[in-house]
Amino acid sequence: MPDPGRAITHIPFSELCALLTSIFERHGASKEVAAVLADNCASVQRDGAESHGTFRIPGYVSTLESGWVDGRAVPVVTDAAPGFVSVDAMNGFAQPALAAARTLVADKARANGIALLAIHNSHHFSALWPDVEPFARDGLVALAFVNSMACVVPHGGQHALFGTNPIAFAAPRAGADPLVFDLATSAMAHGDIQIAAREGQALPDGVGVDREGRPTHSPAAILDGGALCTFGGHKGSALSMMVEILAAALTGGNFSFEFDWSGHPGAQTPRTGQLLIVIDPSRQAGNTFAARIETLVHEMKGAGQARQPGERRYLQRAASARDGVPIPADELDRLRAPAEPRAE
Amino acid sequence: MPDPGRAITHIPFSELCALLTSIFERHGASKEVAAVLADNCASVQRDGAESHGTFRIPGYVSTLESGWVDGRAVPVVTDAAPGFVSVDAMNGFAQPALAAARTLVADKARANGIALLAIHNSHHFSALWPDVEPFARDGLVALAFVNSMACVVPHGGQHALFGTNPIAFAAPRAGADPLVFDLATSAMAHGDIQIAAREGQALPDGVGVDREGRPTHSPAAILDGGALCTFGGHKGSALSMMVEILAAALTGGNFSFEFDWSGHPGAQTPRTGQLLIVIDPSRQAGNTFAARIETLVHEMKGAGQARQPGERRYLQRAASARDGVPIPADELDRLRAPAEPRAE
Repeated sequence: MPDPGRAITHIPFSELCALLTSIFERHGASKEVAAVLADNCASVQRDGAESHGTFRIPGYVSTLESGWVDGRAVPVVTDAAPGFVSVDAMNGFAQPALAAARTLVADKARANGIALLAIHNSHHFSALWPDVEPFARDGLVALAFVNSMACVVPHGGQHALFGTNPIAFAAPRAGADPLVFDLATSAMAHGDIQIAAREGQALPDGVGVDREGRPTHSPAAILDGGALCTFGGHKGSALSMMVEILAAALTGGNFSFEFDWSGHPGAQTPRTGQLLIVIDPSRQAGNTFAARIETLVHEMKGAGQARQPGERRYLQRAASARDGVPIPADELDRLRAPAEPRAE
Repeated sequence: MPDPGRAITHIPFSELCALLTSIFERHGASKEVAAVLADNCASVQRDGAESHGTFRIPGYVSTLESGWVDGRAVPVVTDAAPGFVSVDAMNGFAQPALAAARTLVADKARANGIALLAIHNSHHFSALWPDVEPFARDGLVALAFVNSMACVVPHGGQHALFGTNPIAFAAPRAGADPLVFDLATSAMAHGDIQIAAREGQALPDGVGVDREGRPTHSPAAILDGGALCTFGGHKGSALSMMVEILAAALTGGNFSFEFDWSGHPGAQTPRTGQLLIVIDPSRQAGNTFAARIETLVHEMKGAGQARQPGERRYLQRAASARDGVPIPADELDRLRAPAEPRAE
């Protein structure tokens, strides 16, 4: 939901990464953690996923400053079984935990046909598709589930319990960028609610309820003690419950309603868990998986589905490579401000 | 959608199983296949899932008689990798293929933490929850995906391509029946459209389109060259695509739009594939998974979600154990007719 009246600056990806790295480091992240988070956040901004890009930097910073998350955490990887990797993120961010275990879980998927990565004691504050796309680029199929913070009311219920609980999926294609989707099981992503609130926009029907559980079109009412609905009624609610089970119960992480950050004013990141399932499609005898995906994509186009999952991001990624990463000028000014105080 | 004016007979589960077994055998199924299909169909009827119970027997029969499916198929199980089992159903039904590999995939899940079962060259004509619930009763978590026949239009598209493509999930509880859901990624299950057509009921908004791609409330128009929509707009459509990828591309099965049954008038079962993922939650160090699920269920009830996934089936299952399995009297008469011709 970009504001058409807002000035946009374009900067090179590497420059944005360096800027974000310096911000993370200045607020207590280790060199390693800062590099992973900066690359992740800059990639999301590069691909046009505004709600999870540089818009979130103030949230990262206030959370680091609150002491709620450990920006210097060193994840502990446990090889739990031939197909099961467990990572204790040590109260750090989820992305460095994934980075620490990525090669091991991919190797296990190749050796066994399928492998699971269970991350707990972790904070996920970004989009989920960057976690799965790299597996598909290596010829693997990946599914990811992450729970977040209680802001979604179960279907038929009265108060928030589930997180926005996204599911992401990636599959390789032959000679094309992977098919990738990342969908919140809430009717709308929390980041989009925040943007709508910031920009004073009204929401469509069925997105959320206010603090009394009444339907509302106001993003502010949802953020002020209200709750989001799940997408697709009871089906989305069942999927959101499944995400709680896979990402929290199965990993040893917190449910979205369990963590208590009241002692850390400014904290914004959920301390929960994340589960990834990685499959090697070449284990099916005689399979030509990537070519089969081309058949499916061809037919989806033929049925009238103009844009394939992930395609909008790839188009924006190409534009960013050509023109630089778009970022609102005032936002970039704020990001640069503390590091480069103005002369006057 | 039971017709309140229709007379219902209650018969013991074992009697229904024996009746269905005799019907399957009489129409060309082997003893082994008939036993598996009869138990499956009787279980679905017992649990109140009308649209996939004995209502489907005429479809099974006409498909067997058409020669489209092999009722005597012996599935071929391949131990493809430490965590990957592949089954060629040999153009038989999916349930006997699953039965042939169930113990192996559960053992692999326990040994590796996670395992995958890929079934192809198979026909699935039942509900999906009976495929996952038994794993949860053994302490495992199971996910299943099956594609079907082109009757769902991709979001933004004009003609049918995807199947109703259900996703089923089961997780064990401590001292209670498992949490189980089974949801079609279409806006409504195809069986429910058939029942609505049979009973002359109009459908709600957003369920389907007619043969020209126009929205319709008529189940007959959907069945007569029209198509179903996905649930939840583009999100349901992405999930339906994922089911095609997992159940067909990854298993070596047909996509929902690929098989050609035109040479077999009377054929009704999709010849596609099915994928199951089975996880052993005890591999997460220190995990007390089933107890954690109790915490989640307690909170879901507290948030106002009165009925947990699967609960309606368990209530009907208990009623059927007490009173017998409910079945419309005229349907039961038809099932009994060929085996027990009337004296007059």
